[in-house]
Amino acid sequence: MNVKISHTAEVQKFLEEASGLHNDAGSPRAKALIYRILRDTVNIIEDLNVTPEEFWKAVNYLNELGARQEAGLVVAGLGLEHYLDLLMDAEDEQAGQTGGTPRTIEGPLYVAGAPLSNYEARLDDGTDPGVPLFMQGQVFNTDGQPLAGAVVDVWQANTGGTYSYFDGTQSEFNLRRRIVTDAEGRYRFRSIVPSGYGCPPDGPTQQLLDQLGRHGQRPAHIHFFISAPDHRHLTTQINLSGEKYLHDDFAYATRDELIAQIDFFDDQQRAAAHGVEGRFAEIVFDFTLQSTAEPKEQQRRERVRALED
Amino acid sequence: MNVKISHTAEVQKFLEEASGLHNDAGSPRAKALIYRILRDTVNIIEDLNVTPEEFWKAVNYLNELGARQEAGLVVAGLGLEHYLDLLMDAEDEQAGQTGGTPRTIEGPLYVAGAPLSNYEARLDDGTDPGVPLFMQGQVFNTDGQPLAGAVVDVWQANTGGTYSYFDGTQSEFNLRRRIVTDAEGRYRFRSIVPSGYGCPPDGPTQQLLDQLGRHGQRPAHIHFFISAPDHRHLTTQINLSGEKYLHDDFAYATRDELIAQIDFFDDQQRAAAHGVEGRFAEIVFDFTLQSTAEPKEQQRRERVRALED
Repeated sequence: MNVKISHTAEVQKFLEEASGLHNDAGSPRAKALIYRILRDTVNIIEDLNVTPEEFWKAVNYLNELGARQEAGLVVAGLGLEHYLDLLMDAEDEQAGQTGGTPRTIEGPLYVAGAPLSNYEARLDDGTDPGVPLFMQGQVFNTDGQPLAGAVVDVWQANTGGTYSYFDGTQSEFNLRRRIVTDAEGRYRFRSIVPSGYGCPPDGPTQQLLDQLGRHGQRPAHIHFFISAPDHRHLTTQINLSGEKYLHDDFAYATRDELIAQIDFFDDQQRAAAHGVEGRFAEIVFDFTLQSTAEPKEQQRRERVRALED
Repeated sequence: MNVKISHTAEVQKFLEEASGLHNDAGSPRAKALIYRILRDTVNIIEDLNVTPEEFWKAVNYLNELGARQEAGLVVAGLGLEHYLDLLMDAEDEQAGQTGGTPRTIEGPLYVAGAPLSNYEARLDDGTDPGVPLFMQGQVFNTDGQPLAGAVVDVWQANTGGTYSYFDGTQSEFNLRRRIVTDAEGRYRFRSIVPSGYGCPPDGPTQQLLDQLGRHGQRPAHIHFFISAPDHRHLTTQINLSGEKYLHDDFAYATRDELIAQIDFFDDQQRAAAHGVEGRFAEIVFDFTLQSTAEPKEQQRRERVRALED
């Protein structure tokens, strides 16, 4: 049956009422957004003949999604977080704000307030038997000048592909650090080579991806917030070269300029210089920030994050 | 800034990919629904200039909604559950399936498997000092014939306006019973006069309603599933006459035919006949079911419900 009622004056007035458009209290912005969402929702129901059973499945899905705190994961998996990057890129292009390291998605697994140190840090607590990773680089402005005092806020998964705080199994702030660049804009850290992330196999995000015939895997990557006074805050990631899912990321975060060459070494003399034995890996990656006088642009976008004030 | 990219071939192809339209696995129906939802979502973002901050607030809202299991409550409050009733009414009218007691919303607070008894039951466990309520009536078919063996599945709030199971404070199945009608289609029960329901004041549904300048209150009401062999399952409620929010229900469930006259008595002789002392109340309300040969129509709509198999 294909009965439509959403065009009737009765239903339109009802949706206005439900959205609060007939009262003077509350937030006009929230009302406008909810009114549009309600109109689109009833149009979807009628255009696609959504049954009550399907509607209630969707409602239950929202309960499951929130019960597992996976709303941030599913919007990444459905490409909406990458879409926002594309939209911000287009806005930047229109405003002539180009150059520098590209942005890419933050994902839902940042934790605020990781330990801060100058120039260098060790990210891992030594309990994960992963391959030691030594990463270093410089932070520049778009004129190629190094930025001293930039903050490299880095977070990554362990060899199980999971993140401290969220998996409940790692030490506090494991594989999360903030590093302040030195006078030449340099940073370096010791860590372990991360594994790719996979959506929780029993969670609602993976359940939806299954329905869409899609996997929920990401290539191995390392997240960064890069910030410096008078420069635009950068949310980005590097993807490690040679990964199976490098160009098949379920969250669509890979960008060509963000693929970092990872080199593995079995040279024991070079290992000894790093203070390790056996196989290890190295990455060199530089970041370039756009300048801005706008204080708001110098900070990360507002978003509810773990442990953030 | 008002930059739009959703019309570009690149973004359209991307949303198709994210929806799984480029692979042969999964569910074609799920893909079609998600594709439409994604397209509408990016159109909303661009048409209303939704900022990343607003987007992440919405994502966080979904996490909060599910963490509190309020998705079913918010869709009632936003009128979508009532809209589904209006749509089903219109479908019935087009199909010529009219007559009988009107449907209205189920709400999210049903619990399956309440105790079953013949003809009569007491709903309350005696701990709530509410005004005793004596309700009775008959179940008919649309020809006016009484339906023996119909099941009157009734649930209601206590005087605090909350429901057993969900509030965690009442005895098991308190104010929830299933009653089988007798040979004359009659049922009767003793209970307490319920108070109106209000959304949890610290919950995400009330938070959104505040933004819309709306309250989250319902008039006092009693929920019913009425079913009988060879008849259409009916999901309905009665609203008690004289209530403050009778025509201002935040969930829009009130329908004129469902307003039940409640009479309060201080007549101690009449009280004694009921086996109580002091003030009490009476309601007489009959239900009329449409006939159907369709087995699926004889059951309630599928929906995830507490304790349902």
